[in-house]
Amino acid sequence: MQIQAIKGSFFTSPVYGEVNFHDNALIEVDRHGVISDILFKDQSGYQEALAHYRHQEQLVELSPDQYLLPGFIDTHIHAPQWPQLGVALDRPLNEWLEQHTFPLEAKYANLEFAHTVYTDLVEQLLAHGTTTALYFATIHMEASLELAKICAEKGQRGLVGKVVMDHPTGNPDYYRDESTEKAIADTEDFIKKVRQMAETVPQGLYPVITPRFAPSCTDQALAALGQLATKYQCHVQSHCSEGQWEHDVTAERFGKTDTQALADFGLFGPKSVMAHCNFISDEDAKIFRKHQTAVAHCPISNVYFANSVLPVRHLKDLGVEIALGTDISAGYTPSLYENMRQAVMSSRQLEEGVDTSLPASKRGVVHSRIGMNEAFYLATTGGGEALDLAIGQIAPGYACDLQVVSTSHNKDFAVFSDEEHILHRLLYSTNSDNIEAVYCQGRLVHTKNN
Amino acid sequence: MQIQAIKGSFFTSPVYGEVNFHDNALIEVDRHGVISDILFKDQSGYQEALAHYRHQEQLVELSPDQYLLPGFIDTHIHAPQWPQLGVALDRPLNEWLEQHTFPLEAKYANLEFAHTVYTDLVEQLLAHGTTTALYFATIHMEASLELAKICAEKGQRGLVGKVVMDHPTGNPDYYRDESTEKAIADTEDFIKKVRQMAETVPQGLYPVITPRFAPSCTDQALAALGQLATKYQCHVQSHCSEGQWEHDVTAERFGKTDTQALADFGLFGPKSVMAHCNFISDEDAKIFRKHQTAVAHCPISNVYFANSVLPVRHLKDLGVEIALGTDISAGYTPSLYENMRQAVMSSRQLEEGVDTSLPASKRGVVHSRIGMNEAFYLATTGGGEALDLAIGQIAPGYACDLQVVSTSHNKDFAVFSDEEHILHRLLYSTNSDNIEAVYCQGRLVHTKNN
Ligand SMILES: [Zn+2]
Ligand SMILES: [Zn+2]
Repeated sequence: MQIQAIKGSFFTSPVYGEVNFHDNALIEVDRHGVISDILFKDQSGYQEALAHYRHQEQLVELSPDQYLLPGFIDTHIHAPQWPQLGVALDRPLNEWLEQHTFPLEAKYANLEFAHTVYTDLVEQLLAHGTTTALYFATIHMEASLELAKICAEKGQRGLVGKVVMDHPTGNPDYYRDESTEKAIADTEDFIKKVRQMAETVPQGLYPVITPRFAPSCTDQALAALGQLATKYQCHVQSHCSEGQWEHDVTAERFGKTDTQALADFGLFGPKSVMAHCNFISDEDAKIFRKHQTAVAHCPISNVYFANSVLPVRHLKDLGVEIALGTDISAGYTPSLYENMRQAVMSSRQLEEGVDTSLPASKRGVVHSRIGMNEAFYLATTGGGEALDLAIGQIAPGYACDLQVVSTSHNKDFAVFSDEEHILHRLLYSTNSDNIEAVYCQGRLVHTKNN
Repeated sequence: MQIQAIKGSFFTSPVYGEVNFHDNALIEVDRHGVISDILFKDQSGYQEALAHYRHQEQLVELSPDQYLLPGFIDTHIHAPQWPQLGVALDRPLNEWLEQHTFPLEAKYANLEFAHTVYTDLVEQLLAHGTTTALYFATIHMEASLELAKICAEKGQRGLVGKVVMDHPTGNPDYYRDESTEKAIADTEDFIKKVRQMAETVPQGLYPVITPRFAPSCTDQALAALGQLATKYQCHVQSHCSEGQWEHDVTAERFGKTDTQALADFGLFGPKSVMAHCNFISDEDAKIFRKHQTAVAHCPISNVYFANSVLPVRHLKDLGVEIALGTDISAGYTPSLYENMRQAVMSSRQLEEGVDTSLPASKRGVVHSRIGMNEAFYLATTGGGEALDLAIGQIAPGYACDLQVVSTSHNKDFAVFSDEEHILHRLLYSTNSDNIEAVYCQGRLVHTKNN
């Protein structure tokens, strides 16, 4: 069902750190699912338009305890890892990869398994308010196409990458590309097939060039993928300077940082998103900025596998684009709400420090904290910037991607009425149970009770 | 409704770090709501007992995707702060207290307001699986009694404190006890009234001596409250060494640590619980251990207001009892599940450090991490230890406090079947939506769809 108009109070964040609230606005949607206009309550024409849509029975109206937010944008998620969500997070990274993650990803040679898992994943992401997702699939062509197909069918805006892992020693024998040549050819083939599939997908569907990370790819593959990125003007994703180990190992191999190496291979551009990046230097940050390449910040995952906190505020000050990611299953939740909370909390822990045995002045890094307004931007507008798409805002010209959130669980004791407080309370308390409807490109893609 | 028997698979943690799983056990409950026996599936008599209870229509049976956990124990929560959950967490502590918290707490002079808020709070805590809560109320006698009454009626095991704040300069004019004498007399009166009320409450109801924290109380009040604690063998709660400011200010006033001062006033005993304690020394820890006084660890709240992470593992190694608390509303959630997750994450951040500009070896504090098994213990058995009550375990002799958790949202893709993985997945993903029934002292006190 394509909506024509929706009336409700909404929050949107066009500028980092700022949130706009509009009381009972009327959002008009064109036949492509794009917001064509927004009429505010005190504006001339508002009542007439309202009457018109009501008369035509084309109006979706929110109740007073419901709010509209932009659909969230998850910029880093490993779709095949969905079945092991919350499992083995107390294991060291190498054990987590070798005993759990790689054997699991290898199972997607089985297309039926892929279909079952990916169907559930896409449905659950929509139920958590995520209307756009940038996915790592696996090395398997067919299963990766299946994920794209499911996104298309379920109405989610999917950006999907067939993963490249061609390095003969950097990957397990049972789970790597057959050869460098095949990995490159498959990627090009995948780009074409997804673009063909995308022609009939209103919300958009995008192929993504996806070298897993530098250590899992040969130089030859990285260079060829960079060329494909230019040739097809395609989205690119990878991991970059996640933990101490990755940072050190790539420095040794390339004699330069991850960032510099990936950029030199032609993998940095305005449609590139690099996951984590906790250990990038200020020089690296300038490279991100120059190419308008974004960082996918995965605050929950970072607790388990990055040995540190991403200095979000510092990188924003340096002009780096940052968006949010769940990093399933190194992160334990499909919820970007939970990741927003952890983004705020981790930034405060970076600012205040963690170790009481140190004097207060040496415990943390001053000016590191971000608040909920900033986290909200990262989950919405920041995602649009990262992916170079007109999404993440409730504004004319943007895709009509919306979530209807109920606050009925937050009883109103008339203690405060400040709009920012209402938003923060909502962001701190919402789980999928409170998300009553989700729209992507103007189409209803999830309702709570179906 | 008092249950006679319940059949289901359950997890319980009698020993710190260890979790026991039992497949489809039969838990028998006596008429006082205490677990009288547990029959395991392969045990003789199991089938006969099952047939008996089924025949009598006295058996509650879980479905295969449901699990039983002990009811959770929240050992630090400010009931009056419930209406501002998730609000103003980005403000400095003094502003948060003076502009938001104290004005809100002052409203509980109005008994109707108290009734409305406390009714909602107790219901929502039960819905989140919390069967026992140790509450700070306010300075108001009547409203504090109202909270006790609501716990009694809703079937939650409440431990309630009328807060003492008598210091003439340490508290705002509009929100403090009329006089030191009245604060002491009111506390004694409150103890008697709650104990009288408790005579007809099957799940138990307990008065708690509650000096807010040292800076808000006079020496005279602290000493008198210590005497009342001995006279009535009563539970005691306060805050101790939460943040840098509190730590420093009490050192200056008393010439000793918070811990030492509160212990010297007679406020430390086996039924005492001190919130936070992030800044206690090893010497302080020995005092906690000697008195069997517990620390209420509030990991989410600590991010906002304690400037540090509680060194849980170090304190456990020193023999200190530790339990979990939400610290509403310095913590933004009524869920101990979310606090368990943050307890794990904060401990890892303490171990790994947060600041990438430091070398790995100087970034964190080795051997600080705890895992989900440990966090589960803190939320259950640790709470029973802290409060000196036979609660928190699923075992004969313990109160039948149970939560029925559905895992139907975690589709089983047959990727793992390890019981510990099942538990961790459950603990990382459960919100109130998945808690289908809650029992306290053998009585049904919450169901999902009512
Ligand atoms: Zn990743
Ligand atoms: Zn407190």
